[in-house]
Amino acid sequence: MVSLPESLLSIADIQEMWMVLLPEERAEAFELLGRDAAQEFFLSLSSIERTDIIFHLPEGERKLWMRLLPPDDAADSIQKASEEMRPALLSLLDDKTQTEVKALLSYRQDVAGGLMNPRFARVRPDITADEAIRYLRLQAQGLGGLYYVLVLDEEQHLMGVISFQDLFQAAPEKKIRDIMKTEVVTVTENEDQEVVSRIFAQYKFLAVPVVDSENRIKGIITADDILRTVQAEASEDIQKMGGMEALNRPYMEISFFDMLKKRAGWLVFLFLGEMMTASAMSHFEKEIARAVVLVLFIPLIISSGGNSGSQATTLIIRALALGEVKLKDWWKIIYRELGMGLGLGCILAVIGFFRILVWQSIFHLYGEHYLKIATAVSLSLIGVVMWGSTAGSMLPFILRRLGFDPASASAPFVATLVDVSGIVIYFTVSAIILRGTLL
Amino acid sequence: MVSLPESLLSIADIQEMWMVLLPEERAEAFELLGRDAAQEFFLSLSSIERTDIIFHLPEGERKLWMRLLPPDDAADSIQKASEEMRPALLSLLDDKTQTEVKALLSYRQDVAGGLMNPRFARVRPDITADEAIRYLRLQAQGLGGLYYVLVLDEEQHLMGVISFQDLFQAAPEKKIRDIMKTEVVTVTENEDQEVVSRIFAQYKFLAVPVVDSENRIKGIITADDILRTVQAEASEDIQKMGGMEALNRPYMEISFFDMLKKRAGWLVFLFLGEMMTASAMSHFEKEIARAVVLVLFIPLIISSGGNSGSQATTLIIRALALGEVKLKDWWKIIYRELGMGLGLGCILAVIGFFRILVWQSIFHLYGEHYLKIATAVSLSLIGVVMWGSTAGSMLPFILRRLGFDPASASAPFVATLVDVSGIVIYFTVSAIILRGTLL
Repeated sequence: MVSLPESLLSIADIQEMWMVLLPEERAEAFELLGRDAAQEFFLSLSSIERTDIIFHLPEGERKLWMRLLPPDDAADSIQKASEEMRPALLSLLDDKTQTEVKALLSYRQDVAGGLMNPRFARVRPDITADEAIRYLRLQAQGLGGLYYVLVLDEEQHLMGVISFQDLFQAAPEKKIRDIMKTEVVTVTENEDQEVVSRIFAQYKFLAVPVVDSENRIKGIITADDILRTVQAEASEDIQKMGGMEALNRPYMEISFFDMLKKRAGWLVFLFLGEMMTASAMSHFEKEIARAVVLVLFIPLIISSGGNSGSQATTLIIRALALGEVKLKDWWKIIYRELGMGLGLGCILAVIGFFRILVWQSIFHLYGEHYLKIATAVSLSLIGVVMWGSTAGSMLPFILRRLGFDPASASAPFVATLVDVSGIVIYFTVSAIILRGTLL
Repeated sequence: MVSLPESLLSIADIQEMWMVLLPEERAEAFELLGRDAAQEFFLSLSSIERTDIIFHLPEGERKLWMRLLPPDDAADSIQKASEEMRPALLSLLDDKTQTEVKALLSYRQDVAGGLMNPRFARVRPDITADEAIRYLRLQAQGLGGLYYVLVLDEEQHLMGVISFQDLFQAAPEKKIRDIMKTEVVTVTENEDQEVVSRIFAQYKFLAVPVVDSENRIKGIITADDILRTVQAEASEDIQKMGGMEALNRPYMEISFFDMLKKRAGWLVFLFLGEMMTASAMSHFEKEIARAVVLVLFIPLIISSGGNSGSQATTLIIRALALGEVKLKDWWKIIYRELGMGLGLGCILAVIGFFRILVWQSIFHLYGEHYLKIATAVSLSLIGVVMWGSTAGSMLPFILRRLGFDPASASAPFVATLVDVSGIVIYFTVSAIILRGTLL
């Protein structure tokens, strides 16, 4: 329990202590904010936090706070609540918003329909710029925000858009039809949010209209909505790439056991995979017993494969996520990564070779066949790094092709894959080069 | 060389072939776009691509295209050009924009001043809503875009803001002073872009005013600008976390040798670090020769440490980047990660223990002391995973404290760090448990 001050809190105060408060305490602290600060703070919360707090506020106040939210945010908060709480939350909204929110809730959360705001500024094509401005001044209440004006026909088909800037600078008597932009980039209601965020990033739009398959308007997505989505998506990808399930909650907020669960799954999976290294090595036990010196370089060699694989897989996952690379480009990439692996492998091979020569001349660790050992290590490095780069670059493609998230091709996953094959490559190369001498 | 069609291209056509074209060919293809399509496509390009293309267009056309850009985008493109090209690009702009762009160029690109647009809608506090709208209609030409209206006093101090929605729905005769919002979230001109993007993501703003230390207005940053920044920052972090330098260019566009350079640096650094495993193991050569069976579990044990370290470091890097965790929170995290490491380590230890028992009963691989070996492996796993989790979580803090980017605490970096210590932990634990029997 943190003891709360009696006097009014500022937003900075509450943000400072927010993470360590229990839900009841959060609601208590929230009520100590001044009116304006409380509104601003409430709007800055994530939808999960909003849902939490609403249920810990006195019943009479809940309606007030829910109605502060635009329909898309209200829908998000309702979606984050447990199944049985949803009707209660929905009933806090006014009738018009309830209808809008119900429509939004029918979309999956990760598609355009789940991100859009159903309220926007709209005009008919045959009025003048002056009439449009006067009309919008009458209608402004209850609109989500004014960035673009959408021009619709009677059946709600999207005919064009006008930015406020164009509307303002148009001659007052000019018809909307003559100033609107008709080549409009739109997204359909079921478009994936990843595609939507790519369109925003590429065109630097502030808002994009959402239409159905017949070009009837459904809502509008604004850049501020998509920004949170982009941040959340990057976090998810990054966490998957670190070799775990995405947390979907801030580090300090997720419970110990939830985090343990999200991390243990992949860790166990990787552990089981890595067990194959023990099996692979037991095949070479005879060689190991005869040439213990070879063992010294096992971690060096397999980790180099893992590191080059981690680079390749990271680059490709990100390029796929940003749409810089498409599935059909895989052969261009394999070609490039083979070259890259050869180049990188040769660099490491040269360093490794000289490392062994230098250490031998100083410490005499590696016996009379040190030159052959150096050769075996260097050639293995080239092979392992080439294999790591190509395997690492192809794994995201294979995962996507199989319908999985390419980001699951984490650095640890690739490293595990390459470790097993790295051992086989190393001992095979060594067996060939050291045959008749050490082996 | 790709042969270009004679007829007009569509945006989709040019996007399809864009990546494989040389700069000259890009300019050629670009000229085959229709007028409107060319404008839209030009605005969708990154600033590097824009600079490239402008220099490959006929001299007479360059001015036209540069002047299409708002000042912040023009400044970006100029910044991406080589030193000697910049004056030429600057001279393509009109006088007013030249002054604005020069002011923008004085900022670092990764601070608020480098992201802002110096053009925005502004009014005085003592006019009415109706006057403001009429005034803005006269001024709209040449404004960056209309989202918020900033209210300024005579010395350009920011007094408040009004959204277009509030301006439109205000009674026409109401004074701006009485409808403006005075509690405005602003950023100062030298604020880091990471902080700026956090403010956007948290408050869902469409625009944030940039002020100097005396609250005088400098410009406005819009959500569309910040979206590209967020994407680029996430890419940078992801690539660093994959164990390389950030490419700063799309995968397919960067040249082979540039990429080799960006990847080789870290790979060599990690290779040199990993060499310590060979040194560490040579200290245990006697033990290895006597108990070759221990060697079989080296990759399994060190990779488990690396994987748990990769999870911890990834979580902390992302939490630091999003501001979910602050530097001063390090002790809360070490506490949590020790517990997490213990939990995860125990899970792996149990699996590892039974794996050895089962394999022993089937294949009889591990000799008469298999129970002691299983114990040594399990205890080492607990130690290594705990060490991996804590080292992985602390590394980003240490890097940030030393003034480096925490994202450099990549999975491969942590794995390398943990590999060396993992070997020491494993052989030390084994020496204690197997003393008098195998060792």
